[in-house]
Amino acid sequence: MARRYKITLSYDGAAFSGFQEQPGRATVQSTLESALATVLGESVRVVPSGRTDAGVHALAQTCHLTIDGEKAIRRAERTDFLPKMNGVLPDGIALLSRRRAERFHARNDATKKTYEYVILVSRFKNPFLDGRVWRITAPLDASAMERAARTIVGRHDFSAFCAADSTVADKTRELFAIRISNTSPARLFTRRGEKYVRLAFTGSGFLKQMVRNIVGTLVDVGLGKTSAEDVKRILKSRDRRQAGRTAPARGLYLREVKYGSDTSGS
Amino acid sequence: MARRYKITLSYDGAAFSGFQEQPGRATVQSTLESALATVLGESVRVVPSGRTDAGVHALAQTCHLTIDGEKAIRRAERTDFLPKMNGVLPDGIALLSRRRAERFHARNDATKKTYEYVILVSRFKNPFLDGRVWRITAPLDASAMERAARTIVGRHDFSAFCAADSTVADKTRELFAIRISNTSPARLFTRRGEKYVRLAFTGSGFLKQMVRNIVGTLVDVGLGKTSAEDVKRILKSRDRRQAGRTAPARGLYLREVKYGSDTSGS
Repeated sequence: MARRYKITLSYDGAAFSGFQEQPGRATVQSTLESALATVLGESVRVVPSGRTDAGVHALAQTCHLTIDGEKAIRRAERTDFLPKMNGVLPDGIALLSRRRAERFHARNDATKKTYEYVILVSRFKNPFLDGRVWRITAPLDASAMERAARTIVGRHDFSAFCAADSTVADKTRELFAIRISNTSPARLFTRRGEKYVRLAFTGSGFLKQMVRNIVGTLVDVGLGKTSAEDVKRILKSRDRRQAGRTAPARGLYLREVKYGSDTSGS
Repeated sequence: MARRYKITLSYDGAAFSGFQEQPGRATVQSTLESALATVLGESVRVVPSGRTDAGVHALAQTCHLTIDGEKAIRRAERTDFLPKMNGVLPDGIALLSRRRAERFHARNDATKKTYEYVILVSRFKNPFLDGRVWRITAPLDASAMERAARTIVGRHDFSAFCAADSTVADKTRELFAIRISNTSPARLFTRRGEKYVRLAFTGSGFLKQMVRNIVGTLVDVGLGKTSAEDVKRILKSRDRRQAGRTAPARGLYLREVKYGSDTSGS
């Protein structure tokens, strides 16, 4: 009797060429599946809540996997499964939890996702945050960004913020909240004079590069290049060419995936 | 007329094979000197306050360098020197400041250094802190460590905590303070259930691997394997074999180097 498991994992996007398997490259998927094969003695396929692009991080990504063999199931059930997996996994990726979840589908059952985007406002490079933030040297008006963000919260056709090469037909999504704060992500690594703008997006689901396109547009507001009204107009246009640049992948973190009324998704 | 400059820089030790130049390896020194050659158009030698071992980080390391050519001096004096350098330097290293300082010697003039050591107490791997902390899975008694730390503060012969292959004759140093705290080094990357023990060491100077040997010994106290009295006895023994293991390089950060009454060392 095959068994299905729900797992959560965390990874530093800078260490991998994205989530999805690619020949000859260390991706999150290939690294995780190879560690599972080592520990379980069975080849296992991992299905994520959604792929993350190259450079994008996960504080908690959810996946499911199905194990067939009895021996492999016994190994997955053992209390030392997590430490064993983390001993085999290289730097930059960790398995956080696993539990049985029959009929669970990591992608189809997801009801809510939260992404966080971290901007470092500083004239200076911070070597401990290279690859983990978008560094901007000009000051950002965070309250203008907050006003602009409010105009796109809600249920909308987000075509204007969707990657041009997306093949998804229905571009309507519900954005429950965008929260903007200015706390430092990393006390030890923070230097005097640095400012941070952190944007947390919670939604029913996200289109390809949607968060990064919204961030790029909100940063233009923060820089005084566009206004909250412009952002509202861009959203309504449903035209990708109207929106701002795509913010770089390195500042983006998948923070949490939730399922139904289940709150243990992370 | 040659000019001397004092510079401060920061680097992620995981990105380099230590400070000192080594053929065929990317070290802090070779990376910095190659960026200087590109920006100044002159080959320049960098002298640090002290080398850091492979894997050891610097929040602020101080160095000096001497520039000979008039053209190169003009380039070093320009206001865009720092951004230019940081544009040329790869991920994991940044130049923080430079100023003229005739007759300044980064190593000989240093009067005080602060190192910080970060321990993550958690059963789980944290991919964002891999290479940046020493992870320990068993609980640590931080107050026992604090009591033990107090017994070695002051002016002592630290032979017991000096690497066996050190060639330094005089092993007396003054340790001004050891401060132990439990704040997280990295808010964004911190997960529930994780605990941190951070140890800050301020001293007149440090012997080879002295901080890491003291940390290894204090961790044995935290684990209940040794006591504060043992640590006092170990110090007095002046025998390296009495002390505990050497804590790994990855948890160690050079935080600040001070010069005379000058407080702008970092």
